[in-house]
Amino acid sequence: MDFLVHMEINGQPSDELLKKEAQRARELAEAGILRRLWRVPGRRANWGLWAAATADELHAALASLPLYPHLDITVHPLATHPNDPGSVGGPGRVPQT
Amino acid sequence: MDFLVHMEINGQPSDELLKKEAQRARELAEAGILRRLWRVPGRRANWGLWAAATADELHAALASLPLYPHLDITVHPLATHPNDPGSVGGPGRVPQT
Amino acid sequence: MDFLVHMEINGQPSDELLKKEAQRARELAEAGILRRLWRVPGRRANWGLWAAATADELHAALASLPLYPHLDITVHPLATHPNDPGSVGGPGRVPQT
Amino acid sequence: MDFLVHMEINGQPSDELLKKEAQRARELAEAGILRRLWRVPGRRANWGLWAAATADELHAALASLPLYPHLDITVHPLATHPNDPGSVGGPGRVPQT
Amino acid sequence: MDFLVHMEINGQPSDELLKKEAQRARELAEAGILRRLWRVPGRRANWGLWAAATADELHAALASLPLYPHLDITVHPLATHPNDPGSVGGPGRVPQT
Amino acid sequence: MDFLVHMEINGQPSDELLKKEAQRARELAEAGILRRLWRVPGRRANWGLWAAATADELHAALASLPLYPHLDITVHPLATHPNDPGSVGGPGRVPQT
Amino acid sequence: MDFLVHMEINGQPSDELLKKEAQRARELAEAGILRRLWRVPGRRANWGLWAAATADELHAALASLPLYPHLDITVHPLATHPNDPGSVGGPGRVPQT
Amino acid sequence: MDFLVHMEINGQPSDELLKKEAQRARELAEAGILRRLWRVPGRRANWGLWAAATADELHAALASLPLYPHLDITVHPLATHPNDPGSVGGPGRVPQT
Amino acid sequence: MDFLVHMEINGQPSDELLKKEAQRARELAEAGILRRLWRVPGRRANWGLWAAATADELHAALASLPLYPHLDITVHPLATHPNDPGSVGGPGRVPQT
Amino acid sequence: MDFLVHMEINGQPSDELLKKEAQRARELAEAGILRRLWRVPGRRANWGLWAAATADELHAALASLPLYPHLDITVHPLATHPNDPGSVGGPGRVPQT
Repeated sequence: MDFLVHMEINGQPSDELLKKEAQRARELAEAGILRRLWRVPGRRANWGLWAAATADELHAALASLPLYPHLDITVHPLATHPNDPGSVGGPGRVPQT
Repeated sequence: MDFLVHMEINGQPSDELLKKEAQRARELAEAGILRRLWRVPGRRANWGLWAAATADELHAALASLPLYPHLDITVHPLATHPNDPGSVGGPGRVPQT
Repeated sequence: MDFLVHMEINGQPSDELLKKEAQRARELAEAGILRRLWRVPGRRANWGLWAAATADELHAALASLPLYPHLDITVHPLATHPNDPGSVGGPGRVPQT
Repeated sequence: MDFLVHMEINGQPSDELLKKEAQRARELAEAGILRRLWRVPGRRANWGLWAAATADELHAALASLPLYPHLDITVHPLATHPNDPGSVGGPGRVPQT
Repeated sequence: MDFLVHMEINGQPSDELLKKEAQRARELAEAGILRRLWRVPGRRANWGLWAAATADELHAALASLPLYPHLDITVHPLATHPNDPGSVGGPGRVPQT
Repeated sequence: MDFLVHMEINGQPSDELLKKEAQRARELAEAGILRRLWRVPGRRANWGLWAAATADELHAALASLPLYPHLDITVHPLATHPNDPGSVGGPGRVPQT
Repeated sequence: MDFLVHMEINGQPSDELLKKEAQRARELAEAGILRRLWRVPGRRANWGLWAAATADELHAALASLPLYPHLDITVHPLATHPNDPGSVGGPGRVPQT
Repeated sequence: MDFLVHMEINGQPSDELLKKEAQRARELAEAGILRRLWRVPGRRANWGLWAAATADELHAALASLPLYPHLDITVHPLATHPNDPGSVGGPGRVPQT
Repeated sequence: MDFLVHMEINGQPSDELLKKEAQRARELAEAGILRRLWRVPGRRANWGLWAAATADELHAALASLPLYPHLDITVHPLATHPNDPGSVGGPGRVPQT
Repeated sequence: MDFLVHMEINGQPSDELLKKEAQRARELAEAGILRRLWRVPGRRANWGLWAAATADELHAALASLPLYPHLDITVHPLATHPNDPGSVGGPGRVPQT
């Protein structure tokens, strides 16, 4: 199941914390949970496409981020859309190269 | 450049109009402009990932939708994020054909 | 997975439509999808507790309601909470038949 | 009478405080006041189903939580709905196993 | 239990409907449910103080108003306050007949 | 003239300050300015019914509260409603026992 | 007592209705109730400074406007400010005839 | 050109700062820029009527207030209204000395 | 004086009305009142940069638009900024003919 | 591509920081990225017209501002409008003297 997730960072994280965050993001991407991530221009904020079996699995992933205590997160659950181009070759999925 | 687009449909479109909408969505997907589309559960609304060189190109694509006169659309411009799995060839990537 | 769902009814549904709605609600309750339903006092609105494997299954259930074209629906995905009495067999539990 | 209660935790409570909170939640569950509790995914927030004879009894329960000084709480009063599956076997009640 | 209730009237009710509304308001006042009512200056809206044992009883009273189909109602549950003059026989008291 | 007043307390007032607040509330009740006060369940907030000849008199009363520097106050002016049960025996007044 | 009043006109009133509105505004100005009126640029809306002994008197004046059924009105009660030039005979004063 | 200006004071200014503010307000009133000022009852906030040739002149006046660093200011530009009593020599007029 | 103006078109204007709107926009541009105009992508809405001596002059220009009865307009007054490239003859300048 | 950008400054920047900000603004203006800048009267806020090939280029420019850590920024993407006076002599461009 896909989730659209918006994150806003409160305060100014240190470079070390940002490096840990990038490392954890890589792990979550490899686990197939974090699928895409975009920066909101002009803000310390991002929109992400996340995939998880349940809201519990999603919460565990989000709470594992080193920046989690500084994040203001909003989760939008997503259903598949019949016109989704990504669903060609599988229901709603992001094709894996 | 990527755009996150939210659409809400006003009223109840006819089946014929929905068929035309699906056809146009396919064309925009083939043109590489409409990349992904998800339904908001419980609503006649969707979140979409769109790619266009400029806001003009995006507007032309959105205004070409048969449902356009019935849509309430909000556009969020997206910048690339260093932690985006899609930008480094990772498993969550949306293929750049 | 549980979802908290808020519904607001637009307009005044006929008695016949309300009877069909009650019938469909019974079916969704028997299927274990609609778990609880409360009226918002003073409004043609309700809060409901729904259970579905995915947002797709939830959307299918909501869209199957006879009142669906007249409903303004908002879905809140729910994760389990360690202090939930329902999750440890306590007195407040919603039985998992 | 049922109440839907939303809580948002300000700041980062200590482990000790969280343990006390869990203990008090258990007591309120045993007293039949706290019926269900769900986490809002990605947030230090929850939705709960509470039962109390009056708003006074509800307030006393909420104010007895060790985290209370850190909570931003919103209370939604609930009326029974004729289509509530939980009302089979009693008006509006959560069946007790 | 007291409830603070805000009502906004949609449209322009006929004189006959307003007369029926006044009659029903008198009955609810005699039943001790409607305690006070104030007009919002400049608007077809009011704030009211209502007393009911439960949200169900309150909903039944509100839904019995002839204007109910035209009302946009918001209910605020009220708890007692230790500094309430009404609760200690002071001059501002709403008599509990 | 009646005013509906909503107050939200910022921070955690000391017991001593709360005692002074209760004392000042008693004086304002005796002066017939503070008529009723209800707690918002789950919040350090209240709804109050205040009576004052003008907004100046109301402001003076509110600003005389020991908690005033910590209060976020919203004032709703009230007009009399023809259906107000309290207006039996006088225009808009709360009957005095 | 002064009130700041915001009005938004719904729909397009006829020239005849606007002429009646202007006539009634003149009467309310002569009665000293309507003190000042400004148009919100680009909108069929205005901000006005009104003076009335009570919210009842203000409501009666507002409800006497021929456009009243088409107006969305918000009332802000005003208290005197020690730095008000109008209150000390300064150049910005609204004369109290 | 007239402007309706809303100010909210953050924090608790010292008596000395308030005295300086009053002195500067007098100067701006004498210069014909600050015309009227009202307190929002129950809040450290005010509504003011300001006159300036341009937004630049208005900004210079507002930024010259000793409290300026503590103010949250919103400016509403005003156009003349044909029904304004102040514009036809009526009783509500702000004299243009 | 510059104004930032946001317009939202309600409904679907006819081609003839749009042609008249374009003609009037040309006239206002030639008069130096309408300086720039951008479409909000995906919406029948625009952001415009307008120049007028007063809010009255601006209102007259906006109200002269053939689409005016269908427009929802919000006006933001603008002051000059010391870092504005346009104000020092820089490359981004809007020429003051 | 043009962007309308709103910035709000949190806190009180030092004179030195403001001088650095002005210097960076000049560089961005010379690079043709910052086109126009207006102050919001009465606020430490501005509206700006920015030009960048993509949201990435815009974000890089915004993040290069010395004040960036203190800015709350909102970006509105702009499409060209057929009635834009600036587009005479080139699609959507601000003419360069």
